[in-house]
Amino acid sequence: MKENPQHLARPRSEALDAILGDPFAVLDHGFIRVIDYMGDEAAIVQAARVSYGKGTRIAKEDRGLLRYLMRHRHSTPFEMCEIKLHVKLPIFVARQWIRHRTANVNEYSARYSILAREFYVPDIPDIAKQSTTNKQGRADGTDDMRPEAVQEIIREGANRAFDAYDLLVADDEPDDIGLARELARIVTPMSTYTEWYWKVDLHNLLHFLSLRADPHAQKEIRVYAELICNLVETWLPNVWEAFVDYRMEACTFSRQEMALINKLVSGMDLFAEGVEPAGLSDREAADFKKKLFLST
Amino acid sequence: MKENPQHLARPRSEALDAILGDPFAVLDHGFIRVIDYMGDEAAIVQAARVSYGKGTRIAKEDRGLLRYLMRHRHSTPFEMCEIKLHVKLPIFVARQWIRHRTANVNEYSARYSILAREFYVPDIPDIAKQSTTNKQGRADGTDDMRPEAVQEIIREGANRAFDAYDLLVADDEPDDIGLARELARIVTPMSTYTEWYWKVDLHNLLHFLSLRADPHAQKEIRVYAELICNLVETWLPNVWEAFVDYRMEACTFSRQEMALINKLVSGMDLFAEGVEPAGLSDREAADFKKKLFLST
Amino acid sequence: MKENPQHLARPRSEALDAILGDPFAVLDHGFIRVIDYMGDEAAIVQAARVSYGKGTRIAKEDRGLLRYLMRHRHSTPFEMCEIKLHVKLPIFVARQWIRHRTANVNEYSARYSILAREFYVPDIPDIAKQSTTNKQGRADGTDDMRPEAVQEIIREGANRAFDAYDLLVADDEPDDIGLARELARIVTPMSTYTEWYWKVDLHNLLHFLSLRADPHAQKEIRVYAELICNLVETWLPNVWEAFVDYRMEACTFSRQEMALINKLVSGMDLFAEGVEPAGLSDREAADFKKKLFLST
Amino acid sequence: MKENPQHLARPRSEALDAILGDPFAVLDHGFIRVIDYMGDEAAIVQAARVSYGKGTRIAKEDRGLLRYLMRHRHSTPFEMCEIKLHVKLPIFVARQWIRHRTANVNEYSARYSILAREFYVPDIPDIAKQSTTNKQGRADGTDDMRPEAVQEIIREGANRAFDAYDLLVADDEPDDIGLARELARIVTPMSTYTEWYWKVDLHNLLHFLSLRADPHAQKEIRVYAELICNLVETWLPNVWEAFVDYRMEACTFSRQEMALINKLVSGMDLFAEGVEPAGLSDREAADFKKKLFLST
Repeated sequence: MKENPQHLARPRSEALDAILGDPFAVLDHGFIRVIDYMGDEAAIVQAARVSYGKGTRIAKEDRGLLRYLMRHRHSTPFEMCEIKLHVKLPIFVARQWIRHRTANVNEYSARYSILAREFYVPDIPDIAKQSTTNKQGRADGTDDMRPEAVQEIIREGANRAFDAYDLLVADDEPDDIGLARELARIVTPMSTYTEWYWKVDLHNLLHFLSLRADPHAQKEIRVYAELICNLVETWLPNVWEAFVDYRMEACTFSRQEMALINKLVSGMDLFAEGVEPAGLSDREAADFKKKLFLST
Repeated sequence: MKENPQHLARPRSEALDAILGDPFAVLDHGFIRVIDYMGDEAAIVQAARVSYGKGTRIAKEDRGLLRYLMRHRHSTPFEMCEIKLHVKLPIFVARQWIRHRTANVNEYSARYSILAREFYVPDIPDIAKQSTTNKQGRADGTDDMRPEAVQEIIREGANRAFDAYDLLVADDEPDDIGLARELARIVTPMSTYTEWYWKVDLHNLLHFLSLRADPHAQKEIRVYAELICNLVETWLPNVWEAFVDYRMEACTFSRQEMALINKLVSGMDLFAEGVEPAGLSDREAADFKKKLFLST
Repeated sequence: MKENPQHLARPRSEALDAILGDPFAVLDHGFIRVIDYMGDEAAIVQAARVSYGKGTRIAKEDRGLLRYLMRHRHSTPFEMCEIKLHVKLPIFVARQWIRHRTANVNEYSARYSILAREFYVPDIPDIAKQSTTNKQGRADGTDDMRPEAVQEIIREGANRAFDAYDLLVADDEPDDIGLARELARIVTPMSTYTEWYWKVDLHNLLHFLSLRADPHAQKEIRVYAELICNLVETWLPNVWEAFVDYRMEACTFSRQEMALINKLVSGMDLFAEGVEPAGLSDREAADFKKKLFLST
Repeated sequence: MKENPQHLARPRSEALDAILGDPFAVLDHGFIRVIDYMGDEAAIVQAARVSYGKGTRIAKEDRGLLRYLMRHRHSTPFEMCEIKLHVKLPIFVARQWIRHRTANVNEYSARYSILAREFYVPDIPDIAKQSTTNKQGRADGTDDMRPEAVQEIIREGANRAFDAYDLLVADDEPDDIGLARELARIVTPMSTYTEWYWKVDLHNLLHFLSLRADPHAQKEIRVYAELICNLVETWLPNVWEAFVDYRMEACTFSRQEMALINKLVSGMDLFAEGVEPAGLSDREAADFKKKLFLST
């Protein structure tokens, strides 16, 4: 290395290497496995600085820079990290997931291969009525439901569908139908499991998580998103912390709401006794004051 | 207009305006409707020239430029046209279609709304065995099949699935289950129809067509692609002609194949009597000779 | 139309048609012209509802839906509108602009064509020192500057560069150099004007505006963004209003800041006399309360 | 590993690791360094099979699959590899490069930092007249040029521009102008060097190379592309071989040209003595015959 001080070793995450390939269970038959990744927190910092890799250890000032980038939505440095997951998931979840276009996907093809009889049946606590307040969601609680009956309808329906599927694709005996797989699959239910490799950069992954780990997301995709949250925290702990502070648990107020907040706090001694700016740097505290009086 | 010679009227296609909104049937319950479009052939030419719209009529030299752009895969001018379609299609077709990422989509949501009992059942001539030569396709002919039996299995399976679905979402009587729609939908089959608005630029549309109007595409998406081919021809006839000549019916030979072709034609008088360069301009004829001797 | 109730006319914006093609001046030699567009507010609503065009007039409830979509960052319906601009701009501005990847571009090529001697010289009020607080910006005021001298250095430098360029590309006399244009252009300054057609969907346009019409954007790209803001307001007034309320003049507070705000307003009667929820619907007022106590 | 047979080690390329970080010189002051990468040939094969990594060594049948994928333009498995480069390049090259949108970029910012006096001056053999046949290129040879004079004009012009730049940004003495860097940079020439991190998936990288390593590309970007060709060959030798055979040295014939070729070879014994199907597998030989008679 002495002859060429620019020679690099690949950045790696020991924590992620330790679980590489290991399947983490999701729902009744699904999983997520980390297959590969590119980059670490130093790689984000490096791209932000467009400088040569001066040490790969994350220093205190690096954490500050990561938080600055997240706070100000400077997204391109986060695109410098990439992760590849192997995911097994029900097709109705896959249909929501695939709407995130900036990612690379290779999915199991039921045109080539025969589908296994694997389908999703929700757990009792996840079975609920249509919400009357949230037009696209489910109500809380299963009190006035017969969730076991619901499970049975879903399970029996899927089994009958797979009976039909198996009948259509069978090709062992002379009298078997042997229907083309690309046609036979159309009888299988939306609860059927599929698999794919999904590769995405960190910026787009965080955007995916902000939408799919949100309480408004359908429960069945949310559990995948929540597991990926854990993986990101394992991989890039300071990025994860900043993402939680500035995105997941941040709150946006409209122009009208800001006018109200401004009236409310106007005249207050913002950082008076008992209201110390806990967790804010001096700069953030100054920004905070500025934001609150923005619309006076 | 005299005061401002740059003032424009929107480019329009009379032929497309004449069919705007009209549904064209595809498969047993599907359709395609043109909802809106942007640009015409003059808009492509204009972008290629980055000049002011000197006349909107397509002149003879404009056709030549369009063919030149297509031949040399100069794709950005074709991105200057856009089309928006309203499509009704089975979900297994939608799952192939959505893999084309550079497009805008708004799909019917079965989280909000109740699904109609509409599903795809293939016509007799489309029912075929798994191909033994093409691992992802169907064989020719239905000779040794019982296609009516296949139709019955598919239809009955779908009807039973929708019986279960209707039972799950019913919410009129006190004893009705009223399951959340986002859960109930998981029992419906992949043959269920959905709808979406799909908006795409011409370059990406042509790429979609080159893959999905191809004989290797699954029949059920190919019929949609073929109908869109007609729409493109209606909208942009010279672009369509160039696309057929240089993409759809063009043929690519590998390095090794080129070596063979070269041996075959070496020494031949390429444009001898009886082998006139039909349909080639002088420049194309010269290019043709050059290509054939490329690997000598 | 009676025979086919689905037949459509293209949505159009009278206000935008009235200015189509007209150049609006930006900086000293630049301009923006609207060349074409697709869709109106009804088209956004239609995509959100995936329903048939029940009237194209924007009704009161449509405005509410547009605001709902903007507030909840439901971005795909906004992708259903598209606009195409012809822009003349300095190359250093074009270099920032092009970083917005989800757009279609055809730019004037200095490989083909000879560049005109057109370059940007900032106005006196725009000439300022490097900011000491904002590492990437300029300070306020020109008090301790000699702005005329700066203008002269910039103008003279550009003129000398174009003298060299003209000398290199000249090809009239036998002794002229006639250097390839693709090489000669490398002597021209970053202030040189270029032109392009830029086509983008509304969602990505709004994202562009949120970054480039922001006070932190460089002045020279901001003036283009501000002009485009006016064009969007002309085209889609309710969208524009919602964008201002929920994005441009909205304010996001971090997890830590929310904890502080919560302490500040805790125990307050939020909508007591004098703090009426001006401009909030009942639902928004309820949401507002919820947000403020989110982190208790 | 015995306890969990799915546990993985990251795929790596020894050949690429050996040169990681090492700068390879391009043009007079430019370079390319490989900073990081994701995936190897086994990763492409794995994605194509959506199967568990059965051995990471590339077997004979894997090479065949890679060639099959390339031949049939199955592009998604190639998206499973990713590479990150650190590139130093002149701005006029960067402006062509950035047009490839599906990539991640972090560029040196002359709003923050002061530009070094580094600019491109073409070598004598690269200085040529405007081509009379290729409207966007340069002619062959420097015979009737005074290339040293051209070099001098370019070098002197750039030096004068940097004199002006240095004068504008100087901020040491009380009388120094200290102009904001974002403004001062506009006097620098298009030949000025910039730097960026560029991250791209293999599919999009190959598309970039097919356009930019092509003889029609401007020489100054082509030399970067050619160096990247070497890097891809080092990283993924079988992919590279397939890319050369089926893309770089392949040849596409239009519908009209195919009709002519068909006439030419019609009646020929394609694989007669002396025309053996060198380098074609049996399947490819059959495909070849089929292609040649496609348009009969």
